[in-house]
Amino acid sequence: MQRYKIKIEYDGTSFVGWQFQKNGLSIQKVLQDAIFSFSQENVILTAAGRTDSGVHALEQVAHFDLKKKVSKKKFINGVNQHIKNKPISILNIKKVKKNFHARFDAKKRTYKYVIINRKSPLTLQKNKAWHIKKKLEIKKMKKGAKLLEGTHDFSTYRSSSCQAKSPIKTLKKVSIKTKGDNVVLIFTSKSFLQRQVRSMVGCIKYLGAGQWNIDDFENSFKSKNRIKCAPPAPACGLYLTQVKY
Amino acid sequence: MQRYKIKIEYDGTSFVGWQFQKNGLSIQKVLQDAIFSFSQENVILTAAGRTDSGVHALEQVAHFDLKKKVSKKKFINGVNQHIKNKPISILNIKKVKKNFHARFDAKKRTYKYVIINRKSPLTLQKNKAWHIKKKLEIKKMKKGAKLLEGTHDFSTYRSSSCQAKSPIKTLKKVSIKTKGDNVVLIFTSKSFLQRQVRSMVGCIKYLGAGQWNIDDFENSFKSKNRIKCAPPAPACGLYLTQVKY
Repeated sequence: MQRYKIKIEYDGTSFVGWQFQKNGLSIQKVLQDAIFSFSQENVILTAAGRTDSGVHALEQVAHFDLKKKVSKKKFINGVNQHIKNKPISILNIKKVKKNFHARFDAKKRTYKYVIINRKSPLTLQKNKAWHIKKKLEIKKMKKGAKLLEGTHDFSTYRSSSCQAKSPIKTLKKVSIKTKGDNVVLIFTSKSFLQRQVRSMVGCIKYLGAGQWNIDDFENSFKSKNRIKCAPPAPACGLYLTQVKY
Repeated sequence: MQRYKIKIEYDGTSFVGWQFQKNGLSIQKVLQDAIFSFSQENVILTAAGRTDSGVHALEQVAHFDLKKKVSKKKFINGVNQHIKNKPISILNIKKVKKNFHARFDAKKRTYKYVIINRKSPLTLQKNKAWHIKKKLEIKKMKKGAKLLEGTHDFSTYRSSSCQAKSPIKTLKKVSIKTKGDNVVLIFTSKSFLQRQVRSMVGCIKYLGAGQWNIDDFENSFKSKNRIKCAPPAPACGLYLTQVKY
């Protein structure tokens, strides 16, 4: 048995998410089927981040074990050939030690959230960004984002179905950059709670749109109460961009 | 009668191009129909650049005349509502003098061409970029691009159906920037010949992929002979990004 680590890019729009589910097509299922078609081996993929339905990845990482020895080139070309009608692409494969774990060994995860702030509907970036018509106050959003950095109890931003042992996480950095009508938020942490990024973005948006002031934002954060969270931002704006080990 | 100038964004993938054609849906037709639905007036739109099928626009400009007086907000919201199922979006509208001409008055047009240079298939940027698997030599491409700047006879890069009076144009600037596996070429000129940008990109790609050396490139350019042109780059990587008056 050889353990492999793969990097994957995908457009999450048409999938039920990373994780296998009975009620629709998952990215995991498409990839596992393609690896079976290529190698005649049933594998189980374990990903660094189990992205929700509609969430994209520029660089998801997963591991799996294979009996057969495969060359990098043959694997990438072969498996990509089997998924060529799906918006999923294997970018890289690497042999790793047999105890490597894509989820538990990750040291740093980066997510990007894209907002397009303008009146007119989206065309090229439809399903690839959150369209917000109301003019956002970026300064206020940056102030709120700053409060989230560091080690905190992030219960406010935690989905009720989150299985993490503790709601305490260390958010290394949140940055907000603008270019034209694009507003891009970047979040870096060793790990995130389920729905954490979209929940934080939802609250930061409330600040930017004037639905909250900074005290409202801070009270919500400090309450550690899911009910005090703003509606989570839609999945379509979220990208898993990097996982470091 | 009032003349209006509008700015439009679109994903050109599913259209026969900007210009009205009998054999399929054009961006012009969708917009003219929507303006009719909104105003009950038949208008003819004249665009700054008649983009080909599959070519995108971040900021196309067009003009038209309307008897009815319309407010900016009502027009944008109303017309966008009529095209909401199409990847076309009106970004802005402005009253202009009755002799304003979107095509003939343009002082500077900017086109962007996006290449993704990697082995793995595209997902999020499918139909939005030219996928080139062979590693490109950017230095060589920049050298070729530099030769194109200035006032020249661009006959090599001119489609046989081009209606311009002269093949002589002044290419103000060509720049090539890379970020990760993205290669972005920016072209600025008062005006371009038909198919000029895609033809130039095709030749620059031949340089980068080692299919031509710099002498081959220069001989093709200097020949002023369409037959000596490399195959034009695919439409999907091309974006009309700005028109200045």
